[in-house]
Amino acid sequence: MSNEELVSVEHEFVIKDFKTESGVVLPEARITYGTYGTLNAAKDNAVLLPSSYMARYQGYEWLIGPEKALDLDKYFVISTEAFGNGRSSSPSNTPEPLHGPRFPAISTRDNVKAVHQLLTEDLKIEHLQAVIGFSMGAQQAFQWAVSFPDFMDRIVATAGTAKTYGHGIVRLDGQIMALTSDENFNDGDYLTPPVKGLQTFGQVWAGWLMSQEWWRQELWRDPKSPQLTFDDGVALYRDGLATAGDANDLILQMRTWREHDVGGTSPFNGDIEAALQSIQVPVLYMPSTTDLYFPMNDAEYEAAFLKQGSLLPIDSLWGHTAGAASNPADAIFLNESIAAFMDGRVGVK
Amino acid sequence: MSNEELVSVEHEFVIKDFKTESGVVLPEARITYGTYGTLNAAKDNAVLLPSSYMARYQGYEWLIGPEKALDLDKYFVISTEAFGNGRSSSPSNTPEPLHGPRFPAISTRDNVKAVHQLLTEDLKIEHLQAVIGFSMGAQQAFQWAVSFPDFMDRIVATAGTAKTYGHGIVRLDGQIMALTSDENFNDGDYLTPPVKGLQTFGQVWAGWLMSQEWWRQELWRDPKSPQLTFDDGVALYRDGLATAGDANDLILQMRTWREHDVGGTSPFNGDIEAALQSIQVPVLYMPSTTDLYFPMNDAEYEAAFLKQGSLLPIDSLWGHTAGAASNPADAIFLNESIAAFMDGRVGVK
Repeated sequence: MSNEELVSVEHEFVIKDFKTESGVVLPEARITYGTYGTLNAAKDNAVLLPSSYMARYQGYEWLIGPEKALDLDKYFVISTEAFGNGRSSSPSNTPEPLHGPRFPAISTRDNVKAVHQLLTEDLKIEHLQAVIGFSMGAQQAFQWAVSFPDFMDRIVATAGTAKTYGHGIVRLDGQIMALTSDENFNDGDYLTPPVKGLQTFGQVWAGWLMSQEWWRQELWRDPKSPQLTFDDGVALYRDGLATAGDANDLILQMRTWREHDVGGTSPFNGDIEAALQSIQVPVLYMPSTTDLYFPMNDAEYEAAFLKQGSLLPIDSLWGHTAGAASNPADAIFLNESIAAFMDGRVGVK
Repeated sequence: MSNEELVSVEHEFVIKDFKTESGVVLPEARITYGTYGTLNAAKDNAVLLPSSYMARYQGYEWLIGPEKALDLDKYFVISTEAFGNGRSSSPSNTPEPLHGPRFPAISTRDNVKAVHQLLTEDLKIEHLQAVIGFSMGAQQAFQWAVSFPDFMDRIVATAGTAKTYGHGIVRLDGQIMALTSDENFNDGDYLTPPVKGLQTFGQVWAGWLMSQEWWRQELWRDPKSPQLTFDDGVALYRDGLATAGDANDLILQMRTWREHDVGGTSPFNGDIEAALQSIQVPVLYMPSTTDLYFPMNDAEYEAAFLKQGSLLPIDSLWGHTAGAASNPADAIFLNESIAAFMDGRVGVK
């Protein structure tokens, strides 16, 4: 999906004494981000793309460029990396006394607060055309709309909800236990990676990623690689995250995901429905019809509380990954739908 | 769901020199089973209930008794326990040289072949009114209909398919890795149970058991126990299997499940569609609409190849467990539907 001609610039923004919601202060909170295109003089053409689980800022290039939803002739795109991805401040790259398992818990609100500071202080941007996010990026988009209701004109959430419900907690706890039950994990103070735990984590993750029907239809097959076996297909999805990430980083972001709830924002006091009702801007809500992480039912439940919500499911067998344009048909649908929404061409209820 | 007045008798049948499909011979293959009611003189009132994952024979009592589908005034019920459940021959209870991880792989066909021998030799039964099974029991019911096409008048499969497709393999491999990545597993030669692996196994299992919507609606709540918390609800489903089972036994049955494919029966040579088309008897096929193990799509796919198949989904939020009457509404629907099918009152296409 990457566009070879797409040019981005990598930046880092450092916040001194960043106080997390947990109360712990990070002496230096670093945020890695990338920009595409040019911020105009009025500083009113910016779109924010907050990253999904363990992703780098390049993870949204399926959405950027000519013929895509975000044409750089029109928009200035800022793609941020969430705390814990191994590049922005993370357990793995933070010095003691906050290294590894001692790194503080990070909430979705912490990620949003830090990026708000980045936008207003580093880029002097006071308003966004949109916040668009996939998965944990969608969680951040919802949080933006609740925390800073008039900072953007609209939000788009693909394959991600405004709250992690019980099933997500059960699933993520299983994934965390898969990592931590490897003796080599050593309560997070490992000297070498907990390889068995990482492999188990990857295998369990792979089971949730695609739809059951995707597996039965063997959509892991690739016409360009006819020699690819089932085991190769599994390995592709099992090893991708597990070999790329540090165990403490993987766990940190799973805990951010696990605790996500826009209802926890002041003054909503845990009331997810009131928090959703508080959203002032149009929301393009695009669940995948076969997402096992963020199922259709949850999206339907939440969409009912949105003042200006357009629920537009991605009809796909690609499970959770459909929300990140993992296949050509969904890439087209996402780009066309988001482009229309950016132009105000999608009706809201 | 249990009926206090229900009386059963426990039996054991031993097969000498039982040759498994893998080629390994079990010197003594033991099958634990229970019977309910009385076999009539003509020996033509028997119904077979093959067990689900790690279950004991009592696991089907939701289906047996007055006002249930299997009234003991009418039927003689035989409920068998599959190899590997810790009571029938299993890794944990078989002496060396086949103890623990050296116990041979068991196929669904092995379980069916052994019970066929039990019926014909121990009980002198040459024909069954029905084979009815849930989950791995449904897998066995399909295998009965393919291996012994005129041995029964009909089969019922609740929340289980005729083949384990790719997703089931990925999921089960994750569960197996959860157990085996605990160092204390020691390649199956553990002296004390691999507790962390068992807990991880249980937690991962719990994520697949119920539907996502079941968790969001907090159906773990019990009006009779208002003090029950979310963590209590999780623990109930996490610890049930994990604390009851021996790790090698749990793995043995997962491998049986993983390899299940009626298409592997001679002469079908891996052709699942031909194997399904070979089934001569009416099939009442009852998937749960929210089963994450055996999803609706797989049942719909398979049902299309059945000569006399009635696809009758259980419309439930209770996920996989709906197929075992885990809640009152599904218990009623299952009993009424199966009772009607036993009486020939459900139409077949």
